[in-house]
Amino acid sequence: MIDRQLPYFIGVDLGGTNIHAGIVDSKGAVLARKFVPTLVNEGEDRVVERLCHVIRELMERYPSADFKGIGIGAAGIIDISEGEIVSSPNFPGWRNVPIRDIISSRFCVPVILDNDANAAIFGEQWAGAGIGKRSLIGLTLGTGVGGGIILDGLLWHGSEGMAGEIGHMTIVPDGRRCSCGNRGCLESYASATAIVNRTIESMPRHPENNLLEMAEIENSSELTSEKIFQAALAGNKLAEEIFRETGTYLGLAIGSLINILNPEIFIIGGGASQAWDFFYPAMMDEIKLRALKEPAERIRVVPAKLGNDAGLIGACGLVLRSLGLAPS
Amino acid sequence: MIDRQLPYFIGVDLGGTNIHAGIVDSKGAVLARKFVPTLVNEGEDRVVERLCHVIRELMERYPSADFKGIGIGAAGIIDISEGEIVSSPNFPGWRNVPIRDIISSRFCVPVILDNDANAAIFGEQWAGAGIGKRSLIGLTLGTGVGGGIILDGLLWHGSEGMAGEIGHMTIVPDGRRCSCGNRGCLESYASATAIVNRTIESMPRHPENNLLEMAEIENSSELTSEKIFQAALAGNKLAEEIFRETGTYLGLAIGSLINILNPEIFIIGGGASQAWDFFYPAMMDEIKLRALKEPAERIRVVPAKLGNDAGLIGACGLVLRSLGLAPS
Repeated sequence: MIDRQLPYFIGVDLGGTNIHAGIVDSKGAVLARKFVPTLVNEGEDRVVERLCHVIRELMERYPSADFKGIGIGAAGIIDISEGEIVSSPNFPGWRNVPIRDIISSRFCVPVILDNDANAAIFGEQWAGAGIGKRSLIGLTLGTGVGGGIILDGLLWHGSEGMAGEIGHMTIVPDGRRCSCGNRGCLESYASATAIVNRTIESMPRHPENNLLEMAEIENSSELTSEKIFQAALAGNKLAEEIFRETGTYLGLAIGSLINILNPEIFIIGGGASQAWDFFYPAMMDEIKLRALKEPAERIRVVPAKLGNDAGLIGACGLVLRSLGLAPS
Repeated sequence: MIDRQLPYFIGVDLGGTNIHAGIVDSKGAVLARKFVPTLVNEGEDRVVERLCHVIRELMERYPSADFKGIGIGAAGIIDISEGEIVSSPNFPGWRNVPIRDIISSRFCVPVILDNDANAAIFGEQWAGAGIGKRSLIGLTLGTGVGGGIILDGLLWHGSEGMAGEIGHMTIVPDGRRCSCGNRGCLESYASATAIVNRTIESMPRHPENNLLEMAEIENSSELTSEKIFQAALAGNKLAEEIFRETGTYLGLAIGSLINILNPEIFIIGGGASQAWDFFYPAMMDEIKLRALKEPAERIRVVPAKLGNDAGLIGACGLVLRSLGLAPS
């Protein structure tokens, strides 16, 4: 399984809830995975130790493999050039944590640190739904809405490394309150969290609806976007309507992004994207309303292919590229 | 004035109303200008003849100058690689008009054709308000709202040459009807045309207001954004309010653009930008509400410096770059 002649990489998706790591080959295939809780509340040092432990354990599984580097996608604001997590809503209290240098000095290999949503869209371009595309926008519908932008083959980080915060586009000026303090951000409508909140808020207006029952839960506090999806699959009208509206909100943002950036393709991943069939038609209708006619007709919007592996695969892709081993 | 050792360029801003052309040196200075009406209704051939005539006349003024190329910024959808005006609301009926090759074969020099808003922001970066900046977004508040995006020193044209249509970002989902067919585009709030329309619509709600009198006109059909600016300068409250609201709408769009692209600077030009002092404070307040905290604190939004020359200067800059004569 391991070829001693070939290079291997460790990819890590460092989230606020879980550390998801894997061994990746030079074609973007995942050979082994490890999944542990982050336990952020135990503090920065313990999280870093746990991260090192996961990496070491993966490496020890294949002692004969030639590990050429480690790629880490982390939730939060990343200083790419310094290799630091500047700050992150997922890691309260962390300030300029030099993850890249810590990991690099422990394992004596090159390390690349980037934002998790950037890593995910890079992974999809390298080995997933975006192969062969040069201009892509990725959206990840999870706890928040992550975004990543690849233009002409390169991740666009912005002048200060803070580009791609597509979840914080204002789509409804007087809309829902977002965790960032603004009103009407895409994230406050289309994240998995927002889908749950919008569902709970709409239930009193539909007292006859048996969504909780169809989701097989007793209390709305147990509701997740997955449960709502399950109810939609079972034919629940309110659940279907919630996803339809989610599609409209996504289409509103995507329509503007088409007019601004004219990419080839949008790739949507993250937990809530499993409800694809329920939100896709409304999303495409809204895109046709919002975007200029010609690019609206040609745009492709597709589901991500790499699932939870996108970030760790993409982080390894960034390492490969930095070492001149492709992907271009 | 003309140095036979130096290269010179002809720059043209080809608009639906006027052809604005000039002789530009290799540093972006304009040595001579010519300004004629486009007279679009006379048809494509006559417009092309008039364009050639303007270029020839400028060249004949300085027979000893060594003209190395012609740059043209044109209103509409441009196919950069083919050098064609694909279509344009400003040139009704034009379809894939190969302006670049027509002009190039007439004058036997290299010709670059790009979108007028792209040319304008490139001009500002080369020789105006954006010198030394690598990531810029330009907005032109004219008949419409033009946009141009420069990322890491390069104009971003999009996968099909249709990027930068910032005027057609949706900023109010159920908002004003836009000429593109959508509702709530930035253009339908912040163009000079929209400023006039919003003023006329708000006048019945303020019957006591003497805006027309202060703008020194008799009838609202004579209203222009310049007249409204004049009334604001004279202390008219309604005119001031209209510009304040314009600032809020601009800030709404700019706030999202900061989160998406994290540029260094926004440069705002076009006729309606003369009311800068009236819309700037509301615009910056809205940006602080909408954009993420750190980039919102650092972003610079400045008025364009090159006025009506930005497009023709920038078009020449694009020629210089294509010839390897800088600007980088």
